[in-house]
Amino acid sequence: MKIAFIGLGNMGSGIARNLIKAGHQLTVYNRTRSRAEELTAEGATVADQPEDAVSKAEVVITSLADDRAVEEIFFPPGNAVTAMPPGSTHISTSTISVKLSRRLTEEHRKRKQDYVSAPVFGRPEAAAAAKLFVVAAGPARLVEKCQPLFDAIGQKTFNVGEEPSNANVLKLAGNFLLTTVIESLAESFALTRKFRIDPNLLLTLLTESLFPVPVYKNYGGMIAANKFEPAGFKLPLGLKDNRLVLAAAEEVAVPMPMASLIRDRFLAAMAMGLSEQDWAAIAHISYKEAGL
Amino acid sequence: MKIAFIGLGNMGSGIARNLIKAGHQLTVYNRTRSRAEELTAEGATVADQPEDAVSKAEVVITSLADDRAVEEIFFPPGNAVTAMPPGSTHISTSTISVKLSRRLTEEHRKRKQDYVSAPVFGRPEAAAAAKLFVVAAGPARLVEKCQPLFDAIGQKTFNVGEEPSNANVLKLAGNFLLTTVIESLAESFALTRKFRIDPNLLLTLLTESLFPVPVYKNYGGMIAANKFEPAGFKLPLGLKDNRLVLAAAEEVAVPMPMASLIRDRFLAAMAMGLSEQDWAAIAHISYKEAGL
Amino acid sequence: MKIAFIGLGNMGSGIARNLIKAGHQLTVYNRTRSRAEELTAEGATVADQPEDAVSKAEVVITSLADDRAVEEIFFPPGNAVTAMPPGSTHISTSTISVKLSRRLTEEHRKRKQDYVSAPVFGRPEAAAAAKLFVVAAGPARLVEKCQPLFDAIGQKTFNVGEEPSNANVLKLAGNFLLTTVIESLAESFALTRKFRIDPNLLLTLLTESLFPVPVYKNYGGMIAANKFEPAGFKLPLGLKDNRLVLAAAEEVAVPMPMASLIRDRFLAAMAMGLSEQDWAAIAHISYKEAGL
Amino acid sequence: MKIAFIGLGNMGSGIARNLIKAGHQLTVYNRTRSRAEELTAEGATVADQPEDAVSKAEVVITSLADDRAVEEIFFPPGNAVTAMPPGSTHISTSTISVKLSRRLTEEHRKRKQDYVSAPVFGRPEAAAAAKLFVVAAGPARLVEKCQPLFDAIGQKTFNVGEEPSNANVLKLAGNFLLTTVIESLAESFALTRKFRIDPNLLLTLLTESLFPVPVYKNYGGMIAANKFEPAGFKLPLGLKDNRLVLAAAEEVAVPMPMASLIRDRFLAAMAMGLSEQDWAAIAHISYKEAGL
Repeated sequence: MKIAFIGLGNMGSGIARNLIKAGHQLTVYNRTRSRAEELTAEGATVADQPEDAVSKAEVVITSLADDRAVEEIFFPPGNAVTAMPPGSTHISTSTISVKLSRRLTEEHRKRKQDYVSAPVFGRPEAAAAAKLFVVAAGPARLVEKCQPLFDAIGQKTFNVGEEPSNANVLKLAGNFLLTTVIESLAESFALTRKFRIDPNLLLTLLTESLFPVPVYKNYGGMIAANKFEPAGFKLPLGLKDNRLVLAAAEEVAVPMPMASLIRDRFLAAMAMGLSEQDWAAIAHISYKEAGL
Repeated sequence: MKIAFIGLGNMGSGIARNLIKAGHQLTVYNRTRSRAEELTAEGATVADQPEDAVSKAEVVITSLADDRAVEEIFFPPGNAVTAMPPGSTHISTSTISVKLSRRLTEEHRKRKQDYVSAPVFGRPEAAAAAKLFVVAAGPARLVEKCQPLFDAIGQKTFNVGEEPSNANVLKLAGNFLLTTVIESLAESFALTRKFRIDPNLLLTLLTESLFPVPVYKNYGGMIAANKFEPAGFKLPLGLKDNRLVLAAAEEVAVPMPMASLIRDRFLAAMAMGLSEQDWAAIAHISYKEAGL
Repeated sequence: MKIAFIGLGNMGSGIARNLIKAGHQLTVYNRTRSRAEELTAEGATVADQPEDAVSKAEVVITSLADDRAVEEIFFPPGNAVTAMPPGSTHISTSTISVKLSRRLTEEHRKRKQDYVSAPVFGRPEAAAAAKLFVVAAGPARLVEKCQPLFDAIGQKTFNVGEEPSNANVLKLAGNFLLTTVIESLAESFALTRKFRIDPNLLLTLLTESLFPVPVYKNYGGMIAANKFEPAGFKLPLGLKDNRLVLAAAEEVAVPMPMASLIRDRFLAAMAMGLSEQDWAAIAHISYKEAGL
Repeated sequence: MKIAFIGLGNMGSGIARNLIKAGHQLTVYNRTRSRAEELTAEGATVADQPEDAVSKAEVVITSLADDRAVEEIFFPPGNAVTAMPPGSTHISTSTISVKLSRRLTEEHRKRKQDYVSAPVFGRPEAAAAAKLFVVAAGPARLVEKCQPLFDAIGQKTFNVGEEPSNANVLKLAGNFLLTTVIESLAESFALTRKFRIDPNLLLTLLTESLFPVPVYKNYGGMIAANKFEPAGFKLPLGLKDNRLVLAAAEEVAVPMPMASLIRDRFLAAMAMGLSEQDWAAIAHISYKEAGL
């Protein structure tokens, strides 16, 4: 397929490569052009502007950091939404707000374009290894049509229905759950460290009994080692996702006290200057408050 | 080995049966005698009093509900601690306070008896199937001596060092983590339900991607179905364990805001009259506060 | 002085009347025109559009519900900011965001207009009785110039410095403190009611010993009586102010766990359908969670 | 009246002096005898043991730090409850648990003694100046009989009914409210300081508008100055009272999320080594988490 791929960050570059490997023809755009050029060796064409990238695409795939980045590409100044041909499909893999997802649905519909919301779970390594989990929502025939693309980038696709923004709600719920894992581990390690119990004992115990999954192993490992760099997912991005889940919850009047608690952890961590660290660095707060 | 087994509740009866199967000779005691008599068919001897049960035992194993139950057996009126022979070993599998674990360590030491703290993770089904996870702490030679017993009741033993009460700290940390899983799922399901997303979609998504483990499947399943009976572990027991982890944290001056939050959930659930339901019924609070 | 007065809600109409009484010449504008016309008997002139109201004013005073209302008046479609004469002064008494206050500062400066941020404390009765507390910030000579106006509407003016948006920060901090009073009283009354202690006993005790001030008397009285209508300040406005204080706190990376907690109370109250009640109705949540 | 006065700490010594001034005949006991002897110049007799102090008293008044101190005086080893004459009255001014208050009620009743629970609000200066607020509960005729004593030590007595332990519930609710004032001020000062607003501006604004009461002035003053020594009421005592209110709330199944939040503040402050500071020093946590 002729694909325009926009956003070649840690996630996007891995995803784009897997699409090329699967035989698709990619025109790529990235604000920092050098990251786009890295892909020319593999056969991608580099576009100077979002409009150029999308104007002849069958499918436009975006992997962008936040709402603002998406807005700048699709609305002025980027204007990709007006440049996309009628009948083309936008697949958004970014973790954006429920509200923006609805706006994209609407703006594409007006122009007879299709929109599939398809945020993904997985760290950059999983993106590179085509091991992402894809949460796809949109009209059934569309999701079906996109399935080969999802297969090229992920290990599994969850089809979550017709309403695109629901995929974003689910993605935000998932990221919220990840933050609760981090915070609950942080409190547990603070407790056991104060009893002078070797953090690795707790780590082994948890990940070889109740929680034998990468999420607990990775975050538990960081917290046990009290080492949060290099960052897989930076703290300010975590704060952003927390903000989005709280906004979604506010829209439908759902109190989420754990999300509120985690918001305060993120803010404290920002105030402590940890913005270059992995989002698991909120564990510093638990350690500090315990006098560790 | 000649084992005195005390406490034949949902957990204890399964554990005791597995010890009999492994060829050990059990004298059993339970406050409600009928539950003890159920084991005579399998070869157990029933004792009338704790003292009678333990007076000739090499090993005394306890599976009791809480601190008070343990105290009533070992100290007056039960007096098991004075009735146990010197050189015998007490293995406590109960989830008790760090403080009581220390007191037992001391009282047994005074009488030249041994004490191994060995709380277990697993629901009654796991106890019956000898699939428990055993968290054992005590002098190394002792834990080694008890290993065949742990092998008879569990799928894995974690040796967590010489200080018996540390096993209790770790067990409480583990139970705390379970409550955070429940609460975080409750908030996530409340959120997604308000967006009219089928709870089973979220359940499938979570347990087939980030959290493919029984803990998330079981509790997620209950919360998705909004059905908390029959109870695997009743709410007041959850409140008790929460109280114990907060007490342990207070002893070493560790704030655990998630544990505090969950305490308030348990109290609200008690006030709503849910004491016969599974501890996952704290999800009712999230549902109610969301107007569901 | 020739004053344009915009926004004649519960607060604004009282304030406007007091300015007329003090001898000022008012041109008034309100979205719902009938509320403006009520003031003609007292000598006010009614304007059809914000632009008409402000085009000849020396001073423009606003008393509007939220950011959006202010934006619609000053920016398109209202365009008051372009219609105000150079040299005129905008006094904003509304509880708006720190961010919008900064934007107004900037937009007025560009047009050689002056801007004084002067949010007020006090309920509608206080506005009618000229008993407001005015929190004024802006260039010193300006605040001094406006002092006679503040004297006409309030019992006391606090001059809080040159930076207009700081008055908004302080106003938001004050409103935050009010919500903490409400929530703390709610929890206290829930506790004592469960012990079957007459709520009036607690109310009397508190307001005749440690807290002999209207804030505690008013909110304590509502909560003791469990009666939150008629509303002095509606719940959704409380949620709005809570959102503003959390946004301000996020800007400077300050965790405010009590504000987070209160946010969750407001959302639960909204989900319960209490949006027509006084913001003190968040006490319902404490009562409900206590099984009352 | 012949009064036995037990407990001559910061509060007790002021109270005792006022009783002497009012013409009562005091036999005093204090664990550290030197503090008792300071009162001999004013006419008090010093007892060596609690039993000696109470054996001929008409009224026994206690001003002790916590449950343990009261238990050690009234039950073994102190045994005051057995030494008190039938018909004598115990007035407990200490902030003790609801549970201990009930136990004292019962133990005194068995011995035909009377018990009035009369905890007080006020710092040591108020005790010295006979300006305490007395919260009295017990049989009506008894409270009436004790009124002259309350008049001698306080500025006002609140008669809160027949059930002695209800006075303790109300006292704990009051202390809980004080902690919420401290925490809410701490968060407000952290917020405004991050906006570079002079803390004294906020302090003046609050205490000359909405909150013109000593509680806000005193704690606000400490927090504005970021100075918490000398301590009027030490942090560990605050943690103790928080523990008591949470225990009372647990007994009747009332979640108190603000009390939970404050518990975590106290623990963090203890972990930071602030145990010699005033309980308002929990503000350090807000400052620290804000990066101040």
